[in-house]
Amino acid sequence: MKPGDAFPAAVPSPESSELKDLALITDLYELTMAACYHDHRMFERAAFSLFVREYPPRRRYFVAAGLEDVLLYLRDLRFSAGDLEYLDSLQLFKEDFLSYLEKFQFSGEVQAIPEGRLFFVDEPVLEVEAPLIEAQLVETFLINAVNFQTMIATKASRCYQAAGQRPLVDFSLRRAQGTESGLRVARASYIGGFVGTSNVLAGKTFGLPVVGTMAHSFITSFDREIEAFRAFGRTFPKNTVLLVDTYDTVSGASKAARVGKEMAERGESLRGVRLDSGNIAGLSRKVRQALVQAGVGGATIFASGALDEDRIRQIIRCGGDIDAFGVGTKMGVSADAPYLDMAYKMVEYGQRPVLKLSPGKATWAGRKQVFRSLSPAGKLKKDVIGLRDDRLPGEPLLQKVMSRGKILSGMPALPEIRKKFLDEFAKLGERYKAVEGRRPVFPVSFSPRLRRLQSKATRTIARRELGEI
Amino acid sequence: MKPGDAFPAAVPSPESSELKDLALITDLYELTMAACYHDHRMFERAAFSLFVREYPPRRRYFVAAGLEDVLLYLRDLRFSAGDLEYLDSLQLFKEDFLSYLEKFQFSGEVQAIPEGRLFFVDEPVLEVEAPLIEAQLVETFLINAVNFQTMIATKASRCYQAAGQRPLVDFSLRRAQGTESGLRVARASYIGGFVGTSNVLAGKTFGLPVVGTMAHSFITSFDREIEAFRAFGRTFPKNTVLLVDTYDTVSGASKAARVGKEMAERGESLRGVRLDSGNIAGLSRKVRQALVQAGVGGATIFASGALDEDRIRQIIRCGGDIDAFGVGTKMGVSADAPYLDMAYKMVEYGQRPVLKLSPGKATWAGRKQVFRSLSPAGKLKKDVIGLRDDRLPGEPLLQKVMSRGKILSGMPALPEIRKKFLDEFAKLGERYKAVEGRRPVFPVSFSPRLRRLQSKATRTIARRELGEI
Repeated sequence: MKPGDAFPAAVPSPESSELKDLALITDLYELTMAACYHDHRMFERAAFSLFVREYPPRRRYFVAAGLEDVLLYLRDLRFSAGDLEYLDSLQLFKEDFLSYLEKFQFSGEVQAIPEGRLFFVDEPVLEVEAPLIEAQLVETFLINAVNFQTMIATKASRCYQAAGQRPLVDFSLRRAQGTESGLRVARASYIGGFVGTSNVLAGKTFGLPVVGTMAHSFITSFDREIEAFRAFGRTFPKNTVLLVDTYDTVSGASKAARVGKEMAERGESLRGVRLDSGNIAGLSRKVRQALVQAGVGGATIFASGALDEDRIRQIIRCGGDIDAFGVGTKMGVSADAPYLDMAYKMVEYGQRPVLKLSPGKATWAGRKQVFRSLSPAGKLKKDVIGLRDDRLPGEPLLQKVMSRGKILSGMPALPEIRKKFLDEFAKLGERYKAVEGRRPVFPVSFSPRLRRLQSKATRTIARRELGEI
Repeated sequence: MKPGDAFPAAVPSPESSELKDLALITDLYELTMAACYHDHRMFERAAFSLFVREYPPRRRYFVAAGLEDVLLYLRDLRFSAGDLEYLDSLQLFKEDFLSYLEKFQFSGEVQAIPEGRLFFVDEPVLEVEAPLIEAQLVETFLINAVNFQTMIATKASRCYQAAGQRPLVDFSLRRAQGTESGLRVARASYIGGFVGTSNVLAGKTFGLPVVGTMAHSFITSFDREIEAFRAFGRTFPKNTVLLVDTYDTVSGASKAARVGKEMAERGESLRGVRLDSGNIAGLSRKVRQALVQAGVGGATIFASGALDEDRIRQIIRCGGDIDAFGVGTKMGVSADAPYLDMAYKMVEYGQRPVLKLSPGKATWAGRKQVFRSLSPAGKLKKDVIGLRDDRLPGEPLLQKVMSRGKILSGMPALPEIRKKFLDEFAKLGERYKAVEGRRPVFPVSFSPRLRRLQSKATRTIARRELGEI
């Protein structure tokens, strides 16, 4: 299955956010806090860090995704008249705050690890610096976009790891958590190594290769299975993948092979067959046999049906003769780890380093940079989290992507982001990306200056807050 | 916490779908199948059933949700010029099929179990009857809407069950799987027993009560915690809930109590405090003590932080003095069961019953109705799945909601749907809705006529498809 061959993959540059009602995609507390800051004239600049607190089960790295949505959101964020009317109706906000919101636009700076790059626990994948209200108001959206898309790109990369060189296609739309979710999954899974999607809107929106042929209902709507196969071949002489498991996979494959032979005699060509249930590995060998006997052994055998990285690995280990995989639900909701513990925390306000001490949720103060070192063999060796103005060996990962509310440079095209992922993923040690078994934690340390700042800030706060009352 | 008291809950009737690009929210195979049907002039009417094949872990019932989106989608579904241009660019579809799509609109019938009602495995929650292409094309969206929203309403109902009479508020937006997902979660969790949401757009869109006050960053942006508390009280003299765990919960609660006392002296009133980390049950008792000592013991104690039905139950069992819960991520992605095994299968084509025999995925032929019987005490006793024209005892659950593509009656308002859920949930035996422990399967059987139809159709198909070639 080489979807890229058959379908154009023009990548439109996102001129405008497709999101609407941007400003109200937020938790109410962002607005009540903002109202209080406004009341108390707290307009100094703040810095916030977006990072993951802990690895979810079976993960030891993350694939950055979601930055494009963040930048479009920050650029386009405005409160409409209808938004303000609604907020006014809540009888919580004063007139001068609503007037402030009417003129609101984001004027801050953003530093971020680019989409497609790998990052690890505690590393800021994004930092915002802006007047306090602006930096605070955008919290909910920023977590939502980066948490979800990073989680999916990471899950997709595990399937990519399991599948070896075999192509993977996103089939998740029907059981994604909403339709917009399905759209983001198509994009994020492409970043994480997939080659295309069944999602037509994702094809149109992001220029992704789209893939798909038939469902079981197609077969059952004909009096006989073989008639369904023949009809499809007639309509799509170059793009026919026959679903063979509606009644019985082996008998279905024999019929598909016969139709493939008929197509070959007409100078056409059966592109492949799809298996969607049963013992995929065992069946695939019988299916190949049927295809070879009919002289159409070159047809692709495509597997789908409740697949994830574990099933893919199992099918390959059991000698499954599968050329490509359609991966749906379990990838599309990241079923074994359906959320990341991602947080957006204030690290500085008006030049003062800040942090929280809540048990299990303490944060690191200060604006940061991440420095990545490679081994002599070109493999990822270690990361150091330092202060923004630390000068340490290694590649600094966070780049300035927005200044004064303006996106700084053209956002990279999707295939470029995907290539960035593939290149770096190849440099990550196998032990960190193993689908099964024990995975060590990638070495990430904190710079001496950051540690000193943290100790000092912690002592100051503990003295002030825990002694008194 | 009684969000309904403080905030207006006007429920706008949905005049138009807020979804856009409706027609391309689909898998490519829906369109390739449709093109083949069109080529072969297969325009007879088909019937499809939407149902769940298996219970996910720890679930023994489902709360129907998503129908409103389905009806708006079916009513508004059209292919735009841009959609057709994109499809044409794929070089898969013939001109006459694209012309067909240009005039496409859904003209079929829909029968459905109303939102808020309970249903069980194998029961059709929705059936579509329409010309084959129309009934097929809508598959992806229908599964997406009903699968996701039903899953969330069901998860929310488990939290509702665990919380007893304590109010629950949806805090899930930031880690929902996309922003539209967060919107649907707010609505579905309200159906499943929640009283409000932190999601402002959900407040505006669905008229839901919105709730929220402050984050840890609010506290850290002030020099001292108590100054943050005082400032908030000044801005919101009637709506202040103070987050007390930024540095240390007990010391935070003492400061909150002091500010509560100051507010009382000014004739204002501290609404409550929020605990977001640590041993919630134990801390809550110390927090109450601090509040009582300061003479503000009536303030609400609100708990949040990685809550789900298990944590809620545990907090209550350990004697937690909690008045209300904010439930976020784990409810918003249904973390322990992040998808349902929901399918949309053809059951009839041109008067002929159809089914598939795939291992583990066999389907029941024929258009259906579900008949629900109550015990003399008014409890749910059993359901029988029959053919549509069966006349059996019990209440028929599927209602005709769309005819010739028109929505048949005003869609029920959200509070009405929620009430329907609460009433029926009270009639479901405790053993089916237990949060922990063994849960028996609710008795659902198939009517004799449906069984006979199924046997006959299975024999016919097996003879035709498995014997030959």
